[in-house]
Amino acid sequence: MIFETQEETPEIREPLRRVGITNLRTVAKINWKGREYTFLPLIEATIDLPAEKKGIHMSRLIESVTDAMSEAVEEEVKTAHESLEELGKSVIERIERKHPHKRAEIWIKTHLIIPKKTPASGKTSYEPYDVEVGVIKNENGTFEKVLRVRVIGNTVCPHAMANNNGKTHIQRAVGELEVKADFNEEIALEDMIEVVESSFSSPTYTLLKTPDENAVVQRMFENPKFVEDVAREIFAKAKERFKGKIHVRVISNESIHKHDVIAETWS
Amino acid sequence: MIFETQEETPEIREPLRRVGITNLRTVAKINWKGREYTFLPLIEATIDLPAEKKGIHMSRLIESVTDAMSEAVEEEVKTAHESLEELGKSVIERIERKHPHKRAEIWIKTHLIIPKKTPASGKTSYEPYDVEVGVIKNENGTFEKVLRVRVIGNTVCPHAMANNNGKTHIQRAVGELEVKADFNEEIALEDMIEVVESSFSSPTYTLLKTPDENAVVQRMFENPKFVEDVAREIFAKAKERFKGKIHVRVISNESIHKHDVIAETWS
Amino acid sequence: MIFETQEETPEIREPLRRVGITNLRTVAKINWKGREYTFLPLIEATIDLPAEKKGIHMSRLIESVTDAMSEAVEEEVKTAHESLEELGKSVIERIERKHPHKRAEIWIKTHLIIPKKTPASGKTSYEPYDVEVGVIKNENGTFEKVLRVRVIGNTVCPHAMANNNGKTHIQRAVGELEVKADFNEEIALEDMIEVVESSFSSPTYTLLKTPDENAVVQRMFENPKFVEDVAREIFAKAKERFKGKIHVRVISNESIHKHDVIAETWS
Amino acid sequence: MIFETQEETPEIREPLRRVGITNLRTVAKINWKGREYTFLPLIEATIDLPAEKKGIHMSRLIESVTDAMSEAVEEEVKTAHESLEELGKSVIERIERKHPHKRAEIWIKTHLIIPKKTPASGKTSYEPYDVEVGVIKNENGTFEKVLRVRVIGNTVCPHAMANNNGKTHIQRAVGELEVKADFNEEIALEDMIEVVESSFSSPTYTLLKTPDENAVVQRMFENPKFVEDVAREIFAKAKERFKGKIHVRVISNESIHKHDVIAETWS
Repeated sequence: MIFETQEETPEIREPLRRVGITNLRTVAKINWKGREYTFLPLIEATIDLPAEKKGIHMSRLIESVTDAMSEAVEEEVKTAHESLEELGKSVIERIERKHPHKRAEIWIKTHLIIPKKTPASGKTSYEPYDVEVGVIKNENGTFEKVLRVRVIGNTVCPHAMANNNGKTHIQRAVGELEVKADFNEEIALEDMIEVVESSFSSPTYTLLKTPDENAVVQRMFENPKFVEDVAREIFAKAKERFKGKIHVRVISNESIHKHDVIAETWS
Repeated sequence: MIFETQEETPEIREPLRRVGITNLRTVAKINWKGREYTFLPLIEATIDLPAEKKGIHMSRLIESVTDAMSEAVEEEVKTAHESLEELGKSVIERIERKHPHKRAEIWIKTHLIIPKKTPASGKTSYEPYDVEVGVIKNENGTFEKVLRVRVIGNTVCPHAMANNNGKTHIQRAVGELEVKADFNEEIALEDMIEVVESSFSSPTYTLLKTPDENAVVQRMFENPKFVEDVAREIFAKAKERFKGKIHVRVISNESIHKHDVIAETWS
Repeated sequence: MIFETQEETPEIREPLRRVGITNLRTVAKINWKGREYTFLPLIEATIDLPAEKKGIHMSRLIESVTDAMSEAVEEEVKTAHESLEELGKSVIERIERKHPHKRAEIWIKTHLIIPKKTPASGKTSYEPYDVEVGVIKNENGTFEKVLRVRVIGNTVCPHAMANNNGKTHIQRAVGELEVKADFNEEIALEDMIEVVESSFSSPTYTLLKTPDENAVVQRMFENPKFVEDVAREIFAKAKERFKGKIHVRVISNESIHKHDVIAETWS
Repeated sequence: MIFETQEETPEIREPLRRVGITNLRTVAKINWKGREYTFLPLIEATIDLPAEKKGIHMSRLIESVTDAMSEAVEEEVKTAHESLEELGKSVIERIERKHPHKRAEIWIKTHLIIPKKTPASGKTSYEPYDVEVGVIKNENGTFEKVLRVRVIGNTVCPHAMANNNGKTHIQRAVGELEVKADFNEEIALEDMIEVVESSFSSPTYTLLKTPDENAVVQRMFENPKFVEDVAREIFAKAKERFKGKIHVRVISNESIHKHDVIAETWS
């Protein structure tokens, strides 16, 4: 006989908005535009808990995640999910069959490696980006999604350039863009990455031969930007291209200071 | 002649909500109830940037932070600030004299070490807590504050206990409580810590002699709790004791799994 | 005309042991025992720098890494490398053709997801492990490898159990095993993981239905262990199974304290 | 009656080199050259465990740490320890009176905030550094110490400068210096910091008014350096100034790449 302690009435009758599993490392596969991507994402999956139940059945969330993901890893499966958000939604659909709830969330955090061409020699360079996708089923049954990208770029100080006859300080900067939208909005993570990457003084590249390095240096000096300029450009481009609630944050790892500078805004 | 590039009109006329410095490590001193505390906090300070200005003058924020903090570190100063939020407010008051803005924020993140008595031997044990204090000056000139504490405790699974004749799995858990309130609300970080620490299956202690360890073990087994139970107890106590918007998050580092479980809610 | 600054004589003539690239996120594929694994590893690759050269040509290391990895990601490639260390060695062999050096190192850090059966219900559970593989080409041309695994498990305090009639405190623990060996030693990361995982009070599982959870709880109480016991068992098993220099470190995230405890030894 | 499980004979008779506590956050005070510094360090303390004992008595290490530190925090204490290594040694001396062992280690990790003058305006700027001090009592009773500093600076690429008519890429870099020496060697952390900070293209400052910023930018362009140059200069200066085993590691957070570059060497 098994005691279902989770079904008991708790001492403190307080509904909870998000109960579940987090920091779960697993494997997933998606098939995007005919190309297969494998990920080793970090997963969080939660549901709400009503006031009158003591706990949720955590293992049912795990089974929902595992089943949706293993569809993707088992070799007999021919068609993988077409995006991280489709994969996320399929986890929630499994949770629906296993565990009563009114509201559910799934978050998938991974790296995306995208091939690019270097600016002068035209060689292929594999560029890494951090991405996170959240899928939220609201109490009224509608689905929303949250898409996040994190891109490494740079800032080139226009103030120092004006005051030092063209000399200035340059540093690595990190740009983050979040779009919260209706689930059915078509928003590609690759497009969000492009919006951020094109807003720095220059894009960055993993591989740079000397002519490429020169092209990046020239571009940086022609395009000096404060962290404020980068944030504004990402925000303006994102508002034009993506329908949804937009949040931008840029942090510049100053080369002349030990601290960072930040510019942030949201719609 | 100095070019004030920050004062120029930017190409993209978009106001930004938060521009400033972050990840600044410094030293601060406060005098709380007659006892002096020294901190090595991590600081973030931001102001808004109107659409028609290219940038903010970052060094004025630094001066405001440095002046407010150095008041605290210079030996001739007799009266330190009376709390982290008073210290934060005094940074904003300095920014007001140095840089035009409509909205300002300061965040101070540090550790707090508090002496406690162990449960059986009554020895003194120094307990560490992570705290963060934000002070926000809104556009209408009102001040709010955000207080956060992070406390290490434990969960003891009631479900496994019911199904294994009193045997169960136990693990470390981390409880986070945030209160956002009017600046003048009297809310002590120590009281917030006490709310979280008393909501676990047992408080934890840095120093435990064998009789103390026995008392903690006995208490844990008498007081089994899901991560959901801990979150509910923190939330219920916090709503009763503190006036403001409350957010609770508890993460349990499961001893039977490689992932964590989470319970979260907010008012 | 391109200036080869790296080839100049430096002011300070001091040889350097390790110069190269680090924190490079990329994609790799290996084919182990007929099954294909895709990784998103973090890479470090270094060579030595003689006293009379100012710098190394960093882009040649990148090309060596990219070429070796892209072999694995391009679809026309039929046979992926057979292990992470084979992949690492092929990076060094590419560096040999591109950049003079006497000593070279490559480090590949990733997650490994391994399916296991749960202890009672026999369901499949996907378990994540952190692994790191280093390949070192010494000055005399010999190759060594360093294999590291990091496994999440638990400790169950035998001292509290003896003093509390079978009640005790339990917590998550993390076991790390490193083996440094001749490159040709056959040592599977999976076997190293098994050595660590079997040395805790119980293995942990991502998926546990109630009968599985009961089995884990029963196993933990039958098998109480200090962090010292876990370290000793890993060390003894590893010395018996693997030929090479062995290092063991176990950290237990105590559920009764806010700090951790540690046991470490090496051969 | 208390069972001393630690004193039992373990199943696996294997001596362990390092057993103890780690990640312990506490408070400490030292009095260096007449000035009082308060820290919130992270502590690790370990002793060896002979083959025939099952475990160590962890609480005795905690008491040793707490007593040595509380000496420093209690107000009646007039003379604080004179350095972090003196404080560490006093912890080991307390362990000697409480717990038999042959070898002991204590590690103290904290931030150090040091006032500096800015290069043009001569204002005071508070600069943060990460430091770590280890004290090791060897089996023969001799004491050694390990001193580590971590300093934020910058690199300015000489190769890009030569190929782009004086334009180049610049970025934040982090320099780490470790000296392992006899306990009685007089080596100030401040001197080690100075060795690292003076080896970058320019020192960095928390506060920089426009004339100061100009001075830093001018200095950077007059002093271009690869990560290799920085590592060599730290190493050469450290060998000249400090008697002991020296280890240098410099990591440059490239502004043109998403990865970092590294230069490392040791004596």
